[in-house]
Amino acid sequence: MATPQRDDVDVVVLAGGVGGSKLVRGLATVVDPAHLTIVVNTADDFEHLGAWVSPDLDTVMHRMAGVHDPAQGWGRADDTWHVMDAVAALGGPDWFRLGDRDLATSLYRMHRRRRGDTLADITHDLCAAFGLAHRILPMSDDVVSTRVHTDQGELSFQEYFVHRRCEPVVERLEFRGAEVATAPPGVVPAIEAADVVVVAPSNPFLSIDPILAVPPIDAAMRARVARPVIAVSPIVDGRALKGPAAKLLAELGLPTSSTGVAMHLADVVSLLVVDTSDREQVPPELAPTVALDTVMTTADDEVRLARQVLALADSAAS
Amino acid sequence: MATPQRDDVDVVVLAGGVGGSKLVRGLATVVDPAHLTIVVNTADDFEHLGAWVSPDLDTVMHRMAGVHDPAQGWGRADDTWHVMDAVAALGGPDWFRLGDRDLATSLYRMHRRRRGDTLADITHDLCAAFGLAHRILPMSDDVVSTRVHTDQGELSFQEYFVHRRCEPVVERLEFRGAEVATAPPGVVPAIEAADVVVVAPSNPFLSIDPILAVPPIDAAMRARVARPVIAVSPIVDGRALKGPAAKLLAELGLPTSSTGVAMHLADVVSLLVVDTSDREQVPPELAPTVALDTVMTTADDEVRLARQVLALADSAAS
Repeated sequence: MATPQRDDVDVVVLAGGVGGSKLVRGLATVVDPAHLTIVVNTADDFEHLGAWVSPDLDTVMHRMAGVHDPAQGWGRADDTWHVMDAVAALGGPDWFRLGDRDLATSLYRMHRRRRGDTLADITHDLCAAFGLAHRILPMSDDVVSTRVHTDQGELSFQEYFVHRRCEPVVERLEFRGAEVATAPPGVVPAIEAADVVVVAPSNPFLSIDPILAVPPIDAAMRARVARPVIAVSPIVDGRALKGPAAKLLAELGLPTSSTGVAMHLADVVSLLVVDTSDREQVPPELAPTVALDTVMTTADDEVRLARQVLALADSAAS
Repeated sequence: MATPQRDDVDVVVLAGGVGGSKLVRGLATVVDPAHLTIVVNTADDFEHLGAWVSPDLDTVMHRMAGVHDPAQGWGRADDTWHVMDAVAALGGPDWFRLGDRDLATSLYRMHRRRRGDTLADITHDLCAAFGLAHRILPMSDDVVSTRVHTDQGELSFQEYFVHRRCEPVVERLEFRGAEVATAPPGVVPAIEAADVVVVAPSNPFLSIDPILAVPPIDAAMRARVARPVIAVSPIVDGRALKGPAAKLLAELGLPTSSTGVAMHLADVVSLLVVDTSDREQVPPELAPTVALDTVMTTADDEVRLARQVLALADSAAS
């Protein structure tokens, strides 16, 4: 790396899947490993074919390691599909497909969980195996499961997201188990000490809310009075770049714009980064906003946006 | 097939792994599906990386379907090893390696077991998916586990067989759970009605004994007074073609020859087929013997030996 990594700022980033993983990689390029704590949603986790699948943890880890599939954003580049093809040929469940190497990670994760290891410890070791210097932490070592209450009944997250392709109309989201979930060692102190908490451009309802639903994380975030929490809106000119964020805003009675994101996150954020292409202004009484180019197509985009977000935090502190 | 399959004889075959699977395929070529019941050892089964591995069931199934790896005798031809390679790269357990397609079968099997399906029903569906007309039955739907008591302590079967390469000296074998195991529907009536029960050239201690340790199977076998039970010795001129049968004979204080096999199976068999190359005669008071070429190198060898064994049964019946 040409520029030395920053060690003068302590950063926590809360993130979910593909969009979030891009800003996380940008931050990890810019910030020294000892000064960046990455907290990732695990409420999408589920057991599949004996494997413990952690979609968001793996999406973040794969992108940071540069082994992600650039086309789909999740999974691994150049993976093969022999196991899932063979399972399908046997008449087994093939609605959720994992590549062979991707599956190996999830089988290993379940193997370790069965041995009694925590998800944080397993994630630590996986990150080491993938050669990452930065710390990725699950939001909890406890099982928290997103339940999607829809006009077609209650669905698990993967039933809703993968099996039903987000088609049912969502009435309410529930993070089952969150009320008694604890945060892994290190998460609460990091949030308490952070110069800035960055909320990545992940789905506010499906990726960020579950993290905030873990009581000690919620408490630590609420204790950050007058200290910066900067969220990057995942909505670009009324549309989500990926996933059902815009559809969910509408179904939950919010404007399908960064205004809807601001209304939803108003309690938590001190500053909302919106996209320069947004035609609708967020009412200033909801949240102060700054317009930046939030679309991250290349690794350079990720670094640029990370630097800009940290610059906003620097300004807020000075 | 040139010759019509026999439907004038009801046959049960008890079998274990590679050697047994060859005679099973020979019998399945010769005998009509409605008249052949294949009962397979499941005491080697174990859970590995979230998969339910049934080595003997799969070895028999793969060979019957013609998808087995001809070099090693187990596993599937042209399989790939992406999952196990990736697990090894993560530092996961790699002492037991399964190919990707082989693993898919075992993951599917565990998925079905978790849903509450019996091993017999799962095996039925797997055989159908592999295009088999014949019925393969596990010796039990209950969990029976071979425990190997050795000079180096008690080992699971796979610890002994794969991890430790059969090196520890065996003092005693235990089939844990067998005493309360039941036989799947169809097994006992098939043994009761069979014109001949064939004991395949599988390891008498590790593959045949566990089947006979299931109480209703033991009782049905003992009730076959004066009706043929024909065993094919897995020992050829003092050596096992594959696996630790000869080593076990010695360690358990028996002659390392078909005489040792005869001593061990005397209670059960009415006729022992030995190999023509055997230089040592089995004492006739132990068991009547017939010498045949028992080495099955080609599919034709399997069919020839199957026909010869059935001819011996025909003679015994007339």
